[in-house]
Amino acid sequence: MIQINRKEHFNAAHKLWNPRWSEEKNKAVFGPCANENWHGHNFELIVTVKGKPDPETGFVVDLKALSTVIRKEIIAKVDHKNLNMDVDFMAGKMASCENLVLEFWRILEPEVAKITPDGRLYKLTLYETPRNFVEYYGE
Amino acid sequence: MIQINRKEHFNAAHKLWNPRWSEEKNKAVFGPCANENWHGHNFELIVTVKGKPDPETGFVVDLKALSTVIRKEIIAKVDHKNLNMDVDFMAGKMASCENLVLEFWRILEPEVAKITPDGRLYKLTLYETPRNFVEYYGE
Amino acid sequence: MIQINRKEHFNAAHKLWNPRWSEEKNKAVFGPCANENWHGHNFELIVTVKGKPDPETGFVVDLKALSTVIRKEIIAKVDHKNLNMDVDFMAGKMASCENLVLEFWRILEPEVAKITPDGRLYKLTLYETPRNFVEYYGE
Amino acid sequence: MIQINRKEHFNAAHKLWNPRWSEEKNKAVFGPCANENWHGHNFELIVTVKGKPDPETGFVVDLKALSTVIRKEIIAKVDHKNLNMDVDFMAGKMASCENLVLEFWRILEPEVAKITPDGRLYKLTLYETPRNFVEYYGE
Amino acid sequence: MIQINRKEHFNAAHKLWNPRWSEEKNKAVFGPCANENWHGHNFELIVTVKGKPDPETGFVVDLKALSTVIRKEIIAKVDHKNLNMDVDFMAGKMASCENLVLEFWRILEPEVAKITPDGRLYKLTLYETPRNFVEYYGE
Amino acid sequence: MIQINRKEHFNAAHKLWNPRWSEEKNKAVFGPCANENWHGHNFELIVTVKGKPDPETGFVVDLKALSTVIRKEIIAKVDHKNLNMDVDFMAGKMASCENLVLEFWRILEPEVAKITPDGRLYKLTLYETPRNFVEYYGE
Repeated sequence: MIQINRKEHFNAAHKLWNPRWSEEKNKAVFGPCANENWHGHNFELIVTVKGKPDPETGFVVDLKALSTVIRKEIIAKVDHKNLNMDVDFMAGKMASCENLVLEFWRILEPEVAKITPDGRLYKLTLYETPRNFVEYYGE
Repeated sequence: MIQINRKEHFNAAHKLWNPRWSEEKNKAVFGPCANENWHGHNFELIVTVKGKPDPETGFVVDLKALSTVIRKEIIAKVDHKNLNMDVDFMAGKMASCENLVLEFWRILEPEVAKITPDGRLYKLTLYETPRNFVEYYGE
Repeated sequence: MIQINRKEHFNAAHKLWNPRWSEEKNKAVFGPCANENWHGHNFELIVTVKGKPDPETGFVVDLKALSTVIRKEIIAKVDHKNLNMDVDFMAGKMASCENLVLEFWRILEPEVAKITPDGRLYKLTLYETPRNFVEYYGE
Repeated sequence: MIQINRKEHFNAAHKLWNPRWSEEKNKAVFGPCANENWHGHNFELIVTVKGKPDPETGFVVDLKALSTVIRKEIIAKVDHKNLNMDVDFMAGKMASCENLVLEFWRILEPEVAKITPDGRLYKLTLYETPRNFVEYYGE
Repeated sequence: MIQINRKEHFNAAHKLWNPRWSEEKNKAVFGPCANENWHGHNFELIVTVKGKPDPETGFVVDLKALSTVIRKEIIAKVDHKNLNMDVDFMAGKMASCENLVLEFWRILEPEVAKITPDGRLYKLTLYETPRNFVEYYGE
Repeated sequence: MIQINRKEHFNAAHKLWNPRWSEEKNKAVFGPCANENWHGHNFELIVTVKGKPDPETGFVVDLKALSTVIRKEIIAKVDHKNLNMDVDFMAGKMASCENLVLEFWRILEPEVAKITPDGRLYKLTLYETPRNFVEYYGE
């Protein structure tokens, strides 16, 4: 079993803001991340697929096909967008990296299964900055 | 004469939008960068000071003092902000990297002069992404 | 369960030197790393916390709080220090990356527990150079 | 148990080409990677060894010895080479990253065992580009 | 006057080989870079345009247009290619980074002029590896 | 005229300490950089040579020869050393990056002239950290 990884990026605005809380509580908990007028990041997303290499191609998954899936299913919906306002699958959720990877997983898992007969989505890694990043294994 | 450089970063939202143009023209010229609800970046700013090293300290400028100036004069005003809405010195200007470095220069040049007797602000470099960046020498 | 990561850095001097060995044996085993007068590195430390996101904040742990803990408990004690001479928790130990992460774990594990109700310290990664690094999972 | 990592690099040419297929099928499946006249990459290889630190040295494995093994057993055979034509252990195999790490593992596992009494080869990571990379744990 | 930069990349094979020399002299002068069967690199190309920002757009040049020019005029001709065999503008020339940037300049200068009324191509930077790179200012 | 660059690295200890000053003044001016027991860095040195490419080789300078010069003349003298205590050409000087590049230039300029008939040492860049670096053009 081998893990193969593809990195893509997107640039987006967001804020951390709980609509059930007062402005004061939001500012106290989230600090500058709660700025009403948003801030943003260059996000990096690494998608990891685990499986056996196909003997004819040497591939666990065709990376061009994997890149196409990530761009169609995720990047097209979040790049140059506002993660709180413009992204339907984040509606009503805190726009944290943790919640983003949970939703990305839900969307990508069945799409990855279609392009790799013996592999599966294994891990997502999302960098918000070079210093802050999350990892998710689907459970 | 030696050039010494200090790199700082900030995370901000912006959009490219000319208020004298129609929505159609803005979308046509700026494409996804004109998304109404903003997008954002992890910006990196490199400040270059040129001068002679002081024989007593070996320094062109004290990098701790330079970092303090950059953080007080620039980073505090743009980090976790909306460059179009929250930053007084960008009011009424296109929030492009080109315009950002022109304003950063105007603000930093006199402040850098105060902390280096024989040096001067020589260059600003601003990365919007690792692939897109601008450089300005003050003229 | 999601893993969230925070990267911090410190600059320190050290040498690899076993006081129970002769100078000859130290030089033979550790080579240039045994230089009597020290050498040094820009270290990078990544702290990984694993847990469930809080439904109110979307956070496994507040990264500002995690950064504060790392800076207070580790960075303040090792940055711009000599790891062999200035750091009480390394006294009498080889100043290798392996031993550093063992001590960092012992210090950080209870402090991380205080700031995340449902999470725990999961992994430490320490880069001595971009080419040499260690990882530790606490057991 | 601690994991220690050493990163090395090599520059090589390759193409993805299945000799049992027609030119048309190779071009259809592998796209530009099937260019007859080859293309190439700056590969980065990270070798991970897992074990207990030796109490006398503080080391899981001597990184100088590990670097020597990697350079002698792998880098000398692939650096500035054509992975399809010049590398005996790749003869008759698709020159994919997946197949490369399988062969690197077979070669490195017994050599790493010789230089670490209580450790073992734990993982190989091979970057073909900063965006495409594979990981292998030996099973 | 501001300089704006766009970075693109390509993966290619090449060898250093002077056809007027014997095999022995090629091997003596170019060492492993003269391997008959080629080697390759992940090249990074930075294109710098210098000019005045347009007051209506805030742009020296539209980076989307600049990226399109670089991809059409350069990347499409060299990516996943053999620089000695597949690239018409390198025919009969040593495939060194120095010669590559001279040819890239000749091709890009008139194309950049078409997309920026008040700017011009100012500099090309070509990375063969993170450790080896060249810069050219057109004269 | 083309500029060609080679990057090398070294790991060293140093402190900023003016022996003509009191301990109090050293601590006040240099802060943690004046720690008596040293600290250290992973330094990166970029050496830039400017000249015309040789028509037979396509080279401004042979990068293998340039690398050999840098390693012999600089890296061998500073890697895994204490810049204040172990390096003869820094004796009696503040171990700042500014002073390091001035000495590196004095040593490298005649050695680079020997390996490039039509080129010359053009620039030195020294990174102390990814955030702090100096540049020197020889005058």
